[in-house]
Amino acid sequence: MAKMVLLPVLLSFLLLPFASLALTQDFCVADLTCSDTPAGYPCKSSVTANDFYYHGLAAKGKINPLIQAAVTPAFVGQFPGVNGLGISAARLDIEVGGVIPIHTHPAASELLFVTQGTVAAGFISSGSNTVYTKTLYPGDIMVFPQGLLHYQYNAGSTPAVGLVAFSGPNPGLQITDFALFANNLPSSVVEKVTFLDDATVKKLKSVLGGSG
Amino acid sequence: MAKMVLLPVLLSFLLLPFASLALTQDFCVADLTCSDTPAGYPCKSSVTANDFYYHGLAAKGKINPLIQAAVTPAFVGQFPGVNGLGISAARLDIEVGGVIPIHTHPAASELLFVTQGTVAAGFISSGSNTVYTKTLYPGDIMVFPQGLLHYQYNAGSTPAVGLVAFSGPNPGLQITDFALFANNLPSSVVEKVTFLDDATVKKLKSVLGGSG
Amino acid sequence: MAKMVLLPVLLSFLLLPFASLALTQDFCVADLTCSDTPAGYPCKSSVTANDFYYHGLAAKGKINPLIQAAVTPAFVGQFPGVNGLGISAARLDIEVGGVIPIHTHPAASELLFVTQGTVAAGFISSGSNTVYTKTLYPGDIMVFPQGLLHYQYNAGSTPAVGLVAFSGPNPGLQITDFALFANNLPSSVVEKVTFLDDATVKKLKSVLGGSG
Amino acid sequence: MAKMVLLPVLLSFLLLPFASLALTQDFCVADLTCSDTPAGYPCKSSVTANDFYYHGLAAKGKINPLIQAAVTPAFVGQFPGVNGLGISAARLDIEVGGVIPIHTHPAASELLFVTQGTVAAGFISSGSNTVYTKTLYPGDIMVFPQGLLHYQYNAGSTPAVGLVAFSGPNPGLQITDFALFANNLPSSVVEKVTFLDDATVKKLKSVLGGSG
Amino acid sequence: MAKMVLLPVLLSFLLLPFASLALTQDFCVADLTCSDTPAGYPCKSSVTANDFYYHGLAAKGKINPLIQAAVTPAFVGQFPGVNGLGISAARLDIEVGGVIPIHTHPAASELLFVTQGTVAAGFISSGSNTVYTKTLYPGDIMVFPQGLLHYQYNAGSTPAVGLVAFSGPNPGLQITDFALFANNLPSSVVEKVTFLDDATVKKLKSVLGGSG
Amino acid sequence: MAKMVLLPVLLSFLLLPFASLALTQDFCVADLTCSDTPAGYPCKSSVTANDFYYHGLAAKGKINPLIQAAVTPAFVGQFPGVNGLGISAARLDIEVGGVIPIHTHPAASELLFVTQGTVAAGFISSGSNTVYTKTLYPGDIMVFPQGLLHYQYNAGSTPAVGLVAFSGPNPGLQITDFALFANNLPSSVVEKVTFLDDATVKKLKSVLGGSG
Repeated sequence: MAKMVLLPVLLSFLLLPFASLALTQDFCVADLTCSDTPAGYPCKSSVTANDFYYHGLAAKGKINPLIQAAVTPAFVGQFPGVNGLGISAARLDIEVGGVIPIHTHPAASELLFVTQGTVAAGFISSGSNTVYTKTLYPGDIMVFPQGLLHYQYNAGSTPAVGLVAFSGPNPGLQITDFALFANNLPSSVVEKVTFLDDATVKKLKSVLGGSG
Repeated sequence: MAKMVLLPVLLSFLLLPFASLALTQDFCVADLTCSDTPAGYPCKSSVTANDFYYHGLAAKGKINPLIQAAVTPAFVGQFPGVNGLGISAARLDIEVGGVIPIHTHPAASELLFVTQGTVAAGFISSGSNTVYTKTLYPGDIMVFPQGLLHYQYNAGSTPAVGLVAFSGPNPGLQITDFALFANNLPSSVVEKVTFLDDATVKKLKSVLGGSG
Repeated sequence: MAKMVLLPVLLSFLLLPFASLALTQDFCVADLTCSDTPAGYPCKSSVTANDFYYHGLAAKGKINPLIQAAVTPAFVGQFPGVNGLGISAARLDIEVGGVIPIHTHPAASELLFVTQGTVAAGFISSGSNTVYTKTLYPGDIMVFPQGLLHYQYNAGSTPAVGLVAFSGPNPGLQITDFALFANNLPSSVVEKVTFLDDATVKKLKSVLGGSG
Repeated sequence: MAKMVLLPVLLSFLLLPFASLALTQDFCVADLTCSDTPAGYPCKSSVTANDFYYHGLAAKGKINPLIQAAVTPAFVGQFPGVNGLGISAARLDIEVGGVIPIHTHPAASELLFVTQGTVAAGFISSGSNTVYTKTLYPGDIMVFPQGLLHYQYNAGSTPAVGLVAFSGPNPGLQITDFALFANNLPSSVVEKVTFLDDATVKKLKSVLGGSG
Repeated sequence: MAKMVLLPVLLSFLLLPFASLALTQDFCVADLTCSDTPAGYPCKSSVTANDFYYHGLAAKGKINPLIQAAVTPAFVGQFPGVNGLGISAARLDIEVGGVIPIHTHPAASELLFVTQGTVAAGFISSGSNTVYTKTLYPGDIMVFPQGLLHYQYNAGSTPAVGLVAFSGPNPGLQITDFALFANNLPSSVVEKVTFLDDATVKKLKSVLGGSG
Repeated sequence: MAKMVLLPVLLSFLLLPFASLALTQDFCVADLTCSDTPAGYPCKSSVTANDFYYHGLAAKGKINPLIQAAVTPAFVGQFPGVNGLGISAARLDIEVGGVIPIHTHPAASELLFVTQGTVAAGFISSGSNTVYTKTLYPGDIMVFPQGLLHYQYNAGSTPAVGLVAFSGPNPGLQITDFALFANNLPSSVVEKVTFLDDATVKKLKSVLGGSG
């Protein structure tokens, strides 16, 4: 439009034809007070810039003394702005000697950015049980395919920090030992479905707070 | 068309307008000689009814003596007709005392039909580590959500058989113990990322054929 | 974690960092009292193992005398646990001489396990109208691609039973004759859009309960 | 950038950081000489504006004398530019008295724009067999959900034209009568899986070019 | 079913086995009074043929004097029947000299049917910034890949009309100049993130109704 | 399995039943020598841990003097391990005064982790042209919905660094000014489809290397 002779007085008229587009779903910030659906939460009706912003990964997470590490999630439950957008985040803090025990994310692949320290990481393929391991330094990235067992541990002499992105807003985190031992699944069943003996199962149930 | 006066001689002409539809992709039987893609294998060019049929689940699978059970897959690798169709199958044979050890399918949910015997089955949710268990009799079905740890074992006094469907053509099968112990992941790493002691890890590596 | 010196007293603290993960959507059992959405029903808030279990396929379905067969569904409407999981099931009972008339599933591919009897099955591709047929015996499986016309009938001398899995939780079932004749679509329209004469259309409307 | 002091000599340098983006997949024009995959054809390596343009719907299609209508597709096989883009098109020409017989698109929903004449259209839901019909005039649009039986016929006294869009690049077209009668499916099977008598089936096979 | 001896009195019984299929989701007409979800609106409980029909594209849209053109949407907000069906529509009216300014659809690819007049159209790839342009005449179609900048303008001497289909029910429309100038984004920021000078930015803000 | 009496000699037998699972697609590292498909590249046949690792974001990117910033991608073209996994990454380096000009990613949402410095960021919704802006400090994250115009600039007095994740392996990057001015789209067309005058268009074409 080379001719700029139109007056602002025309503008309320000008914008009218597009007013009906207001329903366009550019995003769908989760209304966590509603029931979830298979595609994510219903959308909040009123949204501000703060809905797309999250500060909760800025500080070191609370270290779990058993694993000497912290996983701080920014999933849809903490960061409703990612609802429906196919992405979410987390922060890993791993003390010297600390470990993120072997686990899966049932609903997303993971991409890890190491920002501090040295991290040994690996995942295991299904079927062939092949192990893929790397030692990662600040600036390195590694991707862990959806649903496969993987781990990270501090392989250095200073605390390690990782920033993690997931390919879904609600990736889930199933830590194998917690799943096996931190609940009331009877010891006899745990023993039957793993290759572990009774003493080991009972000891781990005790440490991890399980019963039965 | 109430009027049936048209002659067969018209038919070669009749069908012409639709001839260009021959490229329609009603199905895409896998050409396993090609490289896979993220959406499945390229399609075979020539297809017969046999491509949509599979006989390999008709007989009892070969029992693995360690678990006294057999998992016989009809995934895309065995049954190329399911490529791109969002579904596949398997057969479970579980002897008295046998077990399908705890495992996940990284790429599909599972629906189990029990057809013979009694099967105890369960899965564990992520996050809260809640256990969902049922004893299943012939005719019962149970669904196991994608990526979650689950198991099945024979809870009766006769052999059990299950038919399984998956929500994808290539669901994967990651048996936790095989992933941890049936490869060359060093024992020290396994110990670090699980809560298991050195003796247990080394014993299981020995039983399951792992090294390191 | 080789060192198992931590006391259970630490555990309530231990589990805290993961408490915020409780929103993880491992599954989404349908709350059928809510409105459906394009991705499935909203999730029930409280779930037990029974939500993932269904007994309704254990018994023979009620035989429809016209077709001498029964289709017993375990879709999301009957089995809410499959909501969002990309899978569902059904049971086919086909008496001697019985038939599942030609039909489509608009929203899923079908995988059939024959468990009793002999079943003749076939589907027809679009465009080229090619027919793919097989005679199936107990243990055989066959896959029917989404949206294509297919049929099954008892080709033996004993009752036949099939277990069916679908690649979606709500596959739909459109039986061609019911769609054409079991409603109030005027006979003149049915005649116009099929190649059938008036007497045939009216007779079938009468048999199948249609009007007009 | 308020400051426009940079010289063009900088530009080859300027563009370098983005050169590695050349692999970005903005589109994937089908290379029809390759095998299809479940997600569509591999991408052509060299593309021009003509790949995104199609002229084949500009002229009236070749009228099929039996139905007095023409369906002219612009699916991926005719218009490779739509590959991977989730959309395709067709043109309907319906003479006075003509009809697009009852049919489904297994792999897409349809949106019809009537541009000339008067079109009676309808579709039938699965399960309840409910009929949804409308008479459409130029400028009207109607949507037909994926996989459901539907039809269009000329309900006026002048030729009718429709432009059609589909929600996928390869929607398929399964005309029920062609699927039942225009192939070698034995008459006895057709009779068994429909509610039609032998005379009707044989007459239609004759008209539509089927055998058996 | 060659034997048509069954009496209509059997029919209420006949249909019973399928009654439980009533929950099948053949479609999901949007209930716009509910909150949207990432997969679309919840479904209306009661539906008629009118829900699948839209008349709003039959008449010429209201011409915006600045661009001498009108975009009349039939997205889910105007045409709730397309909810969940992966398709929607719009009508373009472009006066002589008129233009649909450069814009994107963040959530769909576009397929344009030109029905009247002459339209110059083009889109620009990402990364390499390659331009793909065509002059389109009545009957021509062109496809614009999702998310890429594109435009259409009247290149003839008579008004032009286009019918547009989108590969999603809620494609969005982001007109670049409106996004940059028709809001309160401070001029200094607009200048920083574009290569425009202060006078140009302020003039365009004035014309398009922006502030700051 | 409480009984650990089985000998290693059993193991080659033990693993056999699972050997057919070797086709499981846990991942699909891109073979960039093949043609892309709509779902991503065909899979490499031989894979090592290095395929899941990328070092290219560890160092500061090459600063583009015009924008005083660098965008270093780790898309599928640079990091083939993300193929098919729904995720990718990039690194932003923004000098004092530098800017990532307004742009879109046609094929992914973006999640930004600020790791150094102060970044002002914003995006603009479609339809209503609403602006969402935040000033971000180290540790803050912000999400930018797919396909919407957004920008980032250094709002502090030290260099800023951001790590970016995308919800797809090949997000694309369309910088509005490059799309408009860094190619051979005729100035008269650019003027027509934007609201810019001839002098501005020609100046920007000169600066950005465009012609015409």
